[in-house]
Amino acid sequence: MIALILEENLKPGDKLPNETILSQRLDVGRSSLREAMKLLASRNIVTVRQGSGTYIAASPGMVEDPLGFIFIDNKQKLVQDLLEVRFLLEPSIAAMAATRADEKDIKKITALCDEVETLLKNHEDHTQKDIDFHTAIALSSKNVVVPRLIPVINNSIPLFVETTGGILRRETIESHREIADAIACHDPLHAQDAMYLHLVYNRKWICSISQKQ
Amino acid sequence: MIALILEENLKPGDKLPNETILSQRLDVGRSSLREAMKLLASRNIVTVRQGSGTYIAASPGMVEDPLGFIFIDNKQKLVQDLLEVRFLLEPSIAAMAATRADEKDIKKITALCDEVETLLKNHEDHTQKDIDFHTAIALSSKNVVVPRLIPVINNSIPLFVETTGGILRRETIESHREIADAIACHDPLHAQDAMYLHLVYNRKWICSISQKQ
Repeated sequence: MIALILEENLKPGDKLPNETILSQRLDVGRSSLREAMKLLASRNIVTVRQGSGTYIAASPGMVEDPLGFIFIDNKQKLVQDLLEVRFLLEPSIAAMAATRADEKDIKKITALCDEVETLLKNHEDHTQKDIDFHTAIALSSKNVVVPRLIPVINNSIPLFVETTGGILRRETIESHREIADAIACHDPLHAQDAMYLHLVYNRKWICSISQKQ
Repeated sequence: MIALILEENLKPGDKLPNETILSQRLDVGRSSLREAMKLLASRNIVTVRQGSGTYIAASPGMVEDPLGFIFIDNKQKLVQDLLEVRFLLEPSIAAMAATRADEKDIKKITALCDEVETLLKNHEDHTQKDIDFHTAIALSSKNVVVPRLIPVINNSIPLFVETTGGILRRETIESHREIADAIACHDPLHAQDAMYLHLVYNRKWICSISQKQ
């Protein structure tokens, strides 16, 4: 089935042929085909839309929590270690983005920076938009692996937001803005430093939290 | 079901209660339970051993190819971009390993370094042992995220081995040994530099291959 998707060069959003055609092509019965479809859906390779058909998923093969972080018991250590990994990846990714971002990327990053700022100022939940901001930077790196990695690592953002509450509001607004501006100016060193500083604020806060506990 | 695994604090290798107990605990019928088990198996959360029972998987929640690299068309770009990510991660991870590795870790890393060397000298396939070597270093970092990340990124090693053939044999043996020795001496800077050099050899070779094509 995966072989067929690759062979046919089916892309995210494409509709799969119907059951009759598929069971002929793959030479399997309908019940085996349905079993296979359930497994592909559970791996987020296809999405079944009731009454409409089966489609290739938006990010095929990317399951929720693909590295199984839910099975790591010590959530405080998980938050610290995710942040340690973000320090390895995100400053360099910001530098890549500053070098390689095109006009469309810059528009997207700036718009998301604005949205996060508005949500923060209104004391609304900015978690998803924050992940989108970091993912937009990852996409601008033009590295095909990085945008698949960053949302996984940034699973940590909901945990951070939970532990940091609204306290980091001003620092988040200012450091996000500095990152976005540096990328817009194609200034890789400035983007790298601004991202590093953004992560330092997060680490300081997490350390102060864990000392209180 | 996942809630039950977390609640009961079941660990990799632990056996799940039998169907009767599970369907009572979860208040579902046997056929729904079997459906759920199939999905958990496809997500590599449990492993079904015929005639023996159902067990928690070795790395629960880690599926094969979790980031869906098979769906990235341009394999040459994938190899280059995976290597770019390895440059961001592995030198720092080698430094962490040099700082944090205990005696048991060092024994493991040295043994795997020996095994890869023997396989390379005998012109045998060293791919899996090479991945194990890098994973052992990742485990020694004592970061809980890193050992889940490195095997995914090192999906690239089979691709490298394919493209580089046996040519990198001497460089691989020497740079692996230097990494292992630096970790054994708890010398983080040396470990970091040795890993960087190891990746440089790989990049040089990949560049020379892609220029020929």
